[in-house]
Amino acid sequence: MSSTRDIDSLIEMMAKLPGLGPRSARRAVLHLIRKRDLKLTPLADLMQIVAATACECDNCGNVGTTPTCDICLNEARSNGILCVVEDVADLWAMERTAVFKGRYHVLGGTLSALDQVGPDELRIPRLINRIAAEGITEVILALNATVDGQTTAHYIADQIEGSVRLTSLAQGVPVGGELDYLDDGTISAALAARKAI
Amino acid sequence: MSSTRDIDSLIEMMAKLPGLGPRSARRAVLHLIRKRDLKLTPLADLMQIVAATACECDNCGNVGTTPTCDICLNEARSNGILCVVEDVADLWAMERTAVFKGRYHVLGGTLSALDQVGPDELRIPRLINRIAAEGITEVILALNATVDGQTTAHYIADQIEGSVRLTSLAQGVPVGGELDYLDDGTISAALAARKAI
Repeated sequence: MSSTRDIDSLIEMMAKLPGLGPRSARRAVLHLIRKRDLKLTPLADLMQIVAATACECDNCGNVGTTPTCDICLNEARSNGILCVVEDVADLWAMERTAVFKGRYHVLGGTLSALDQVGPDELRIPRLINRIAAEGITEVILALNATVDGQTTAHYIADQIEGSVRLTSLAQGVPVGGELDYLDDGTISAALAARKAI
Repeated sequence: MSSTRDIDSLIEMMAKLPGLGPRSARRAVLHLIRKRDLKLTPLADLMQIVAATACECDNCGNVGTTPTCDICLNEARSNGILCVVEDVADLWAMERTAVFKGRYHVLGGTLSALDQVGPDELRIPRLINRIAAEGITEVILALNATVDGQTTAHYIADQIEGSVRLTSLAQGVPVGGELDYLDDGTISAALAARKAI
């Protein structure tokens, strides 16, 4: 490589980000260097700020810049409904729809015998505390429809059954989805859960 | 979005990098925040350093951290052969092969009537100066095999014809390439340039 060491290291670090590889990292870094004052410096500054301020919400596990996140601090969202998600990315995906008005609880992963992740590695004990402390009446288990996600959902359901109303996201045909491209499981689930028009 | 403003801005800036979109930017930023001390802080520091030191070589247009790049400073590479490329990324691609031992000249684009890029917007006058100043005997026009790239190659060839030996990269079947997946033009070119075994 002809570029000097710092530029090479920057490309290497960028290449290790999820979704980037060596080629796209090179393109991104060249692009940033070309627009140095407009892009590279502001991006570096912003990263410094985020590195200094970002933290997990001590209540729900969301990522923010305050010890307790905006959602947990928002009294208007204290409606007794708690949505349990695997990951912060899932929480953000739910928030983008702007439909759910309750609070969240981020587990931080799924139970996994293979990876030796037990209930204590996740935020499950904290979830059980919150149900009592915040007067939760309904828990929505919005875990991914994977084997690990569903195993975790069953485990949580066993733990808190009886104390609250338990729901999960509906399964069916995605909006705009074409039957021909869907797997058999999804079509079977959609058929079983069919509804009157 | 539940994340606070700085995190949102960081995701927005990352999403504008070539090769990244909103989803991969979110994934990358969450990944960086999770491994803050190991990844986010070092990346921000390195970006600051590169923003402060990166510059274009005043001789060939390569990107480096010194006013004249390592290749132009390397006396061993002063062998009279100059490889003309469109872009720094192309120069890096050539360097990765470690086969070419001469120097480079980065044009910084191609001639384009549509985008109003003329010879003076590129480093063509500087190229003509270098040929005389550095005692160049051969110029390899390693421009992309696109219409604009080839137009630029013809223009440069017209300008410097007679003064040096002019060559271009061979066209043919890529190493590991399968005929069935190649376009007609490539196969025709490979056939026309066939060689004895």
